[in-house]
Amino acid sequence: MKSVKKVAIVGTGLIGGSLALRLRNEKLASFIIGIDSNLENANYAKEHGIVDEVMSLEEAIPLVDVMVIAIPVDQSVRLLPSVLDKVDQQIVFDVGSTKRSLIDAIQGHSQRGRFVATHPMWGTEKKGPSAVVNEAFQNKALAICDKENSDQDALGWVQMMYQQLGMRILYMGAQEHDLHAAYISHISHITSFALANTVLEKEKEEAAIFDLASAGFESTVRLAKSNPSMWAPIFLHNKMQVLDVLEEHIHQLKKFRQAIHDSNEKELFALMEQANQIKRIIP
Amino acid sequence: MKSVKKVAIVGTGLIGGSLALRLRNEKLASFIIGIDSNLENANYAKEHGIVDEVMSLEEAIPLVDVMVIAIPVDQSVRLLPSVLDKVDQQIVFDVGSTKRSLIDAIQGHSQRGRFVATHPMWGTEKKGPSAVVNEAFQNKALAICDKENSDQDALGWVQMMYQQLGMRILYMGAQEHDLHAAYISHISHITSFALANTVLEKEKEEAAIFDLASAGFESTVRLAKSNPSMWAPIFLHNKMQVLDVLEEHIHQLKKFRQAIHDSNEKELFALMEQANQIKRIIP
Repeated sequence: MKSVKKVAIVGTGLIGGSLALRLRNEKLASFIIGIDSNLENANYAKEHGIVDEVMSLEEAIPLVDVMVIAIPVDQSVRLLPSVLDKVDQQIVFDVGSTKRSLIDAIQGHSQRGRFVATHPMWGTEKKGPSAVVNEAFQNKALAICDKENSDQDALGWVQMMYQQLGMRILYMGAQEHDLHAAYISHISHITSFALANTVLEKEKEEAAIFDLASAGFESTVRLAKSNPSMWAPIFLHNKMQVLDVLEEHIHQLKKFRQAIHDSNEKELFALMEQANQIKRIIP
Repeated sequence: MKSVKKVAIVGTGLIGGSLALRLRNEKLASFIIGIDSNLENANYAKEHGIVDEVMSLEEAIPLVDVMVIAIPVDQSVRLLPSVLDKVDQQIVFDVGSTKRSLIDAIQGHSQRGRFVATHPMWGTEKKGPSAVVNEAFQNKALAICDKENSDQDALGWVQMMYQQLGMRILYMGAQEHDLHAAYISHISHITSFALANTVLEKEKEEAAIFDLASAGFESTVRLAKSNPSMWAPIFLHNKMQVLDVLEEHIHQLKKFRQAIHDSNEKELFALMEQANQIKRIIP
């Protein structure tokens, strides 16, 4: 199996574009086609050397060895079955933040084995090909889901490729992935979005926010700048898990509210000392 | 007025210790005394050249030109009146995160004018003199509250000193400060503490948190490592404002919960697009 491939990337935004840069720089891709319903993004990607050519999906599939799906998860769920309908021996993988609904959509497909479900735990709050990052993915975790349902050659190349990008590969089931993702990633985004809305609602003097904002505020509110087109489908495609963890989060906030309301310093201490335990896990 | 002073710092922790380093490096202090009920911290500060000597408050006051109060706000409220009882022409300032209860505690004091209420918008989630930072305070905001109640010479030196540390000075009333601080700083800490507790409660597989944690998770949960001894008094000394903003935050989270529960993509979009407005303010 040759490791240098011709690659088409559906979605020339932050993730797809950053992956294109890395694939080219690591000499994992000899030719990269960009496919995007947003022609402005696709043209930007071509003009800036992120992709070599812009084509339609139908034109691109017969020309490449690898298809990357790097679009919001609701669009992936709609698109992936028709991509598998059209591929022969191509490798297809996605990079989305939820996995179960996508894998369900291709269950029993005759070309199921050509697909590898991956989730690189990397991103920024920015969007579009102008936000691509040269050193993306390096030293981050990568989840590969339900690997036993992927063909050996497809899985093999995808693993080799992510390892060369410097990622740490973890294997898990799609359902398990979605549960962990809700706890570790999705809830952080909801709290950050809600925090931004809280501050915008309460602090009518926007100049005061700007003038006083500290590094602490900036770090907790950073994710609130994230792209709604990406995140709305994630929350809805992981609805039950996200609702469950959001319920718990509201419960935890109410514990703080009660302790502060009661001026219960002992309980406040206990809640914060418990939270400090996160240091053990995220040093 | 000579600008180089002998300084005593009550509280040799992260903030007091980092300030000591900067005062020495900027040649704003010729001699620095550390005062701390935690002798281990005080001795660490002396051994590492953060302070020159360790003394009791009573020994230190007559020897210095400037007294810095860098202890949790509940302790500041208890200590400051007795410090003002003992000072003559010394300048006294604090660096705490709430201001109203502290200023109320010295209202009408004959030495009120010697005191300047300041809040440097700088900190990290770490604590103690081993966490001091050489470049602390640089390019951050500094709030000075109720400056009209401080003597001109005291205010003048404190302003000059913070400017030399590279801080951007903002003036406001104590009540206004506490309101802004609740919105911009205190609520961020509560959401982060509560997020850590949420994840620790829901994600029983701690290895999964460690393995999968992304930069997004780390940035929203970073403040959850903060020192409870510092933050419990802040929340309680700013109780009404903190409860008010926490109530709003829970309300905003419930909006997300409702939109996700109803699979109301349009509303989810609207909530996130509103949150995106924070970009205008915190670019």
